[in-house]
Amino acid sequence: MNSKEQFGNKLTELRKGRNLTQVQLAERSGLDRPYISGIEQGKRNVSLEVIAKLAQALEIEIKTFFEE
Amino acid sequence: MNSKEQFGNKLTELRKGRNLTQVQLAERSGLDRPYISGIEQGKRNVSLEVIAKLAQALEIEIKTFFEE
Repeated sequence: MNSKEQFGNKLTELRKGRNLTQVQLAERSGLDRPYISGIEQGKRNVSLEVIAKLAQALEIEIKTFFEE
Repeated sequence: MNSKEQFGNKLTELRKGRNLTQVQLAERSGLDRPYISGIEQGKRNVSLEVIAKLAQALEIEIKTFFEE
């Protein structure tokens, strides 16, 4: 699994763990829902600033995305 | 300090901790030295794949970049 797929799976896990829909995460993070869907499918090579926005929206530290 | 500056500082700390020059890190990671210099100055909004290449070159896990 490459880094994009790993990140996508983790984002889905963390989002669902907080009972958020992609739409709700999009609203919180200021990102588009289709973009979030693409990230979760492992299709997006997200940037550091997008990662930071997602972490803030999920109220987690960035490192959590990269922990088993 | 924004996420780019934090990442840049951490990259410098981790690189120097392994006694690597920017040139050596560039060779190991397949990235250009000037690009690495820009990252360390907090000027680059690096992508996940660049982060993964840097982690591999430094022989660390990605989460290490985001730990205090």
